[in-house]
Formats: sequence, C-alpha cells, structure tokens
Amino acid sequence: MPITQQESERVAIVGASMTQFGQREGWIMDLLAEAGLECLEDAGVDAADVEHLYVSNMASGEFEGMTGVPNALAHDLDAMPAYTQRVDQTSSSGGAGIYAAWQSITSGASDMTLLVGGEKMSHRSTPETTDIIASVTHPVEYKTGVTLPSFAGLTARHYLEQFDAPRESLGKVAVKNHKNGVDNPNAQFQKEVDLETVLESPIVADPLRLYDFCPITDGSAALLFCPESVAKEYTDEYVVIAGVDGATDTHVVHEREDPTVMGGVVESGKGAYEMSGYGPADIDVAELHDMFTILEFLQMEGLGFAEQGEAWKLIEEGYTERDTGELPVNTSGGLKSKGHPLGASGIAQGVEIYEQLMGEAGPRQVEADVGLACNVGGFGNCVITTIMEAAQ
Amino acid sequence: MPITQQESERVAIVGASMTQFGQREGWIMDLLAEAGLECLEDAGVDAADVEHLYVSNMASGEFEGMTGVPNALAHDLDAMPAYTQRVDQTSSSGGAGIYAAWQSITSGASDMTLLVGGEKMSHRSTPETTDIIASVTHPVEYKTGVTLPSFAGLTARHYLEQFDAPRESLGKVAVKNHKNGVDNPNAQFQKEVDLETVLESPIVADPLRLYDFCPITDGSAALLFCPESVAKEYTDEYVVIAGVDGATDTHVVHEREDPTVMGGVVESGKGAYEMSGYGPADIDVAELHDMFTILEFLQMEGLGFAEQGEAWKLIEEGYTERDTGELPVNTSGGLKSKGHPLGASGIAQGVEIYEQLMGEAGPRQVEADVGLACNVGGFGNCVITTIMEAAQ
Repeated sequence: MPITQQESERVAIVGASMTQFGQREGWIMDLLAEAGLECLEDAGVDAADVEHLYVSNMASGEFEGMTGVPNALAHDLDAMPAYTQRVDQTSSSGGAGIYAAWQSITSGASDMTLLVGGEKMSHRSTPETTDIIASVTHPVEYKTGVTLPSFAGLTARHYLEQFDAPRESLGKVAVKNHKNGVDNPNAQFQKEVDLETVLESPIVADPLRLYDFCPITDGSAALLFCPESVAKEYTDEYVVIAGVDGATDTHVVHEREDPTVMGGVVESGKGAYEMSGYGPADIDVAELHDMFTILEFLQMEGLGFAEQGEAWKLIEEGYTERDTGELPVNTSGGLKSKGHPLGASGIAQGVEIYEQLMGEAGPRQVEADVGLACNVGGFGNCVITTIMEAAQ
Repeated sequence: MPITQQESERVAIVGASMTQFGQREGWIMDLLAEAGLECLEDAGVDAADVEHLYVSNMASGEFEGMTGVPNALAHDLDAMPAYTQRVDQTSSSGGAGIYAAWQSITSGASDMTLLVGGEKMSHRSTPETTDIIASVTHPVEYKTGVTLPSFAGLTARHYLEQFDAPRESLGKVAVKNHKNGVDNPNAQFQKEVDLETVLESPIVADPLRLYDFCPITDGSAALLFCPESVAKEYTDEYVVIAGVDGATDTHVVHEREDPTVMGGVVESGKGAYEMSGYGPADIDVAELHDMFTILEFLQMEGLGFAEQGEAWKLIEEGYTERDTGELPVNTSGGLKSKGHPLGASGIAQGVEIYEQLMGEAGPRQVEADVGLACNVGGFGNCVITTIMEAAQ
C-alpha cells in the first residue's frame, strides 16, 4: 500500500555515482567499494555517518563464490557498525534496493542510507552466465530450456503480429539507445549502430537478434539517501523520491493471460503514481529496463506513456528521442548500450534520473523536473517503479 | 538510528509458524510454501491481503541452483501482485527479515507483511555445505582455510583461558539446549544428551567438539506483521515489536581487538534496548544464536545479561534453565538441538518468542511478558537483536 508523500518527511537523494560499466578486472568488492566511496565523496558525507548500508546483488555466490558481501563492504568502506544487508530481486535488485533504502529512511530506522549495487559476471563463460541468469525462471520453464531471451523472442513475435508493428520499430529502440550511450562515458558501448546493423545481426531468439539484447557487464552504482531535513545540512540541491512501489506478476510466465502486458509494470507504476500524485503526462524523462528491445515497448505501455500496442508508433515518431522527443527514454543509453550488471542496473537508472534532475547530465542533459525509473526482474516477475523530482 | 516506539504506530505480529526442522525431502519451495501457508492460516489472514512478502534465504542459488525464490513463493502462495524481495544477511538473514518487515510496516509501505525464511541444505555433502557457508568469511581468511567452526574453536580456547572458565561450562550449554529441544516437536534432535557425551564427542576445533556445534538442517519458519490497528481487526491477542536494531563488526575477524567481545551483539542490543525502553533486567526469555556453544556466552555478555567473562558462571548456577532459571535461554532448544537452516533460524527464534509471549509454548512455556532474540551472521559480522512484548 503506497503512502502519500505528505504523511511523512520526504526522502532525499544527496549523492550518486557509477563505475565504468563493461569488462572489468578485479572482483565485485573492488567495484562496490569504488562506487560506494565515490558516492559518499559526491555527497560530502563521511562513511562514519552511514547508518544503513544496502547491497543490491543477485549472485556473487554463484559468480564468484563469495557471500557476506554487505559485511565485507561495510568493512572496506569503514562504515561499521552500520547495519548492512543484501537486497536480491534478481535483475531488479537495484530498484528493490531503492525501495528498501526509502523504507529505511521513512521508518526512521536510518538517517543516512548508502545503497550500492553491483555484479561481476564477465569472467564466467557466456553459457555459465546464461545458466545463472536462467535460474530466475520457474523450474518448469528452466528445465524445458526456456531462458529469458527466448521469452523475449516469443513475446516480440506476438507483439509484432498482434499490433501489426514493423520489425524495424524494435531495431529503432537499439539505435536510439546506442546513440544516447555515445555521450555516457561510463557506458559499456559508446558507439552508434545503424538500423541495418541491428536488423542484420545474428538471430538469437527469432525475431530478436543480437543487437536487441543488452550485453553481459561488470559494474557498480550507488545512491545516498537521507530525510530531507538532513539533506539540507549538506546541500541546497538534491532530489527527492516522490513515489516508489513494487509488484509481482506470475512467476510462471506462460500463465499470463496477455503476454504483451506486464502486470508488475502496471501495478508498480500505479502505486508510484498514486504516492507521488503525478501521472504519465508529468514525467519528463524515463529510464526503462531495455534488457531486450521489446521490453521498452511493454514498459511504455504498462506505465501509461502509450496505449497498448502503440508504443512502436512513438519510437517511429521520435517521441522518445533525447534531444527532440517529448519524453526522452533511456538518455543514459539504457541497459542496451550502458550494460546490465544485474544488481547495479536499477541503481544506475536512478543515477541517470538523479543527474538529469540535478542538471549534471552533461551532453545527455534534457529539460526535466520529474523523472521515472522502471526496473524489471525476471521476465516481469517483479518490477519496481520509482518517481523522483528535483527538490524545491 | 533506532527510533522510539511512541513516534509511530507499533508493529504487531499476528501469526507464526515453523516446519519440522531436520533432513527434509523436496526442495526449498516446498518448505517455504508450507511455513508461509501455515502462518497465514495461524493468523486467519488471506494471501490476497499480503502486501509485502520477504524471503530470508542465504544461498538457494548455491545449494539448489535456484534464484528468484521470492517471486516463486508469491506465485505459490497466490499472493501476487504483492511486492517481494529476498533478504540475505548470511546466517542472520532471518533477523534481517524481521528488521525489513518492521521497516515495511513502519514506513507505511505495507499494511500486511509476510516474512518466510528457509534453507535446504542436507542434500549436499558436508564438505560442499561447509564450503558454501565458509564463503561468508573474508577471502583472506577463507583462502587460508579458516572456517566459522575454527573461529569458534579459537575464541572458545581464548575465553576459557582468559576467564578461567571450565570446559564443562560450554558442554552444559549443549546439555541445557538439548533438554529444551525434547519438548519442541519441530526440533531436529528431540533427545537429551549428558555432559559426558558432549565432552567425549569427537574434536572438531579444539577445544570444541561435535556436540558444541549445531547440525546441518533443512527447514522454514514464518511470521506475519501488520500495524497494531490492523492487528486488532483480526485478534485481541498478539505480540508487538518493542525494539529492533542491527549492527556490523569487522568482516575480518582477526582485526577485532578483543575476540571475546562481539561488537555487533553489543551495538544491536544497545539499539534494541534504547528503542524499546527496556534493559537486560526486563527480559523474561531469550533466544540466542548458539550455532556454537561459546556463542551463547558471548551473547549473554554482549547483551548485558552477564558481565564480561562471567556468563559461564550463570550456566553453572542454572540461571538460564528453562523451568527453574531466572532467564530461560533457548527454550526452543536453540540452534543446537532445533537445527540451523540458515535463512530460517532468526525467524524461528522469533516464532519461539512469539509463542512464549502468547502462552502457546506448551511444555516449553515459561512466564514471560518481554522476550529477546539475537541472530548472528558470519562470526558476529552482522547481528540483529529484536525485543518483543505481549500486547496490552
């Protein structure tokens, strides 16, 4: 049950950081410590003032044989005796971390919560990584060999046929997000791709091709939260969380009535809108979870930016372009070009919205007072939507 | 920063359950669903009314190759679109889940939060399980072969020498907790052991022997939380959380100044006492994390039930005996006889305190209005202390 803002003091974000995303040396602790320290420095807050430390991470045990990562990070940052805990919600662990951090502040449990998310994946082979990620699906599906990319292919095929959408519209999502990623110095791929390249890349899950998918990525991102009254002690400029909510859909994907509707997106969006008092028309910039190009359409529709079956028309019209569109989507480059280190991705979405609202996005800057991030776990099995606004 | 109770509505616990602990057939989903359904039934609450669902679990990915467990449980319980997330704090994941659930209610994010914790371990070999659990230690320690049992051995040796305590006092912890476990139908071991058996059992980490250690266990436990005003809609009798806090100590155990002091116990206890307004003398019954017998002493001292170096005298005096002692400790049988399914243990501690405060503990019942649970992660790397009281 989302609560309305005015019932309690608002939660401020006073610091943000992300590491270079891509193939990184070292191990997850290096990445987390890098992002965590940079975030504290960005905010001018001492590690000793951190009261809660949340680590968003899906699978450090599976990828690196290391658990207890939050304790290790508290030690590395010298944040002890700060309380610490791992937040896992598979690929939406980052968004879940934002929700957990919001709860820690709003409940009064913490006056300064550092959220650091990350994943170190690229040292494992692609089959190994695919298998670890596929473990998020229901065993019934997993055992028949259905992976997240194959769900994406099936859904894309269905979407294109049902709504008479051209295959090119999906390709244009990749083109747009790669173009945005050129201006993100932390993106894994800082290069444009043209539509032909996307459409002629190798088939992965028909009709989706290699360039419809995000890459395998190492990286970390961090955000620092406190009550608004505490934020004012450090700075005049900050961002507040206007609304946040999370929701599940069936874990067995094939039980959903309509594969083109992600219930978790719809429900979490509804909750975040209700809490914030904003609606889709109030959102100036959005980071959507484009793990697969088709997901950008499903979130555009589930969040009310487009009618069902019509998101593809908006990309054709340039509605979501960064410099000329009405609603710039994935100005960061999205998961598609920025990369998708599972536990970091939802937080990196928040970092982009934070920078946009603070006017710190450099060549990616758009006009924005209110921004939204949507972080999708599994194939929409659990989704967290966060709405942020510049403090006034 | 713990807040004082009166600042917001109190958090009530209206349902509790645990499965049979021990070697169980099936997989983790069976255990979690069993405890979750029984908890809802215990409270008379419908799954559709659950708004947040937290799953305390350390390593389903490592033990069973399955992630996304919270989503699967939301599906199995038919609790969708309830928000769900995994809470991992290694062996204190259960306590961390209680803290997360408390935050979810106090922040207003949820009016009905189901917490289910569990672990399925016994299908793996003991070396495999030991290796997964050892991954919680710092790599510096892990790579040199230091495991949690060896830390326990080193600490016990130090404690006995420094405080001139007899080896027998540690053995008496095992004897007491096994005796209590006889009356717990869900305990893994429902049998008494005598002091000789403990003292003559095989050496594991000198001076500690087999009977100083908890077993490897499968099991699940659950608690159901809501604001006090909502609790009154369902029942006149419930328990409230009077205080809860968590704290870290160094992740590298050998950096601690005094190995007989667990900083996380001290700090989390301080926070929980402060929030509740209670002190050690107000506690009528306690569940302490006796993963190793020595830990019961360290928590007795860290929580202020005994002076440093004197907890061993209390066991000798019978102070912690269930039927005759001043402060019954581990009336459930403790981790020692009940078993230690990592993610379930902190919740099962809460279940015992709940049953004691509700007068539902059957042959284990003691006189108690206020109870405390202390859940220890790693070797005290992170600790959560919870104080509960019967509603008035």
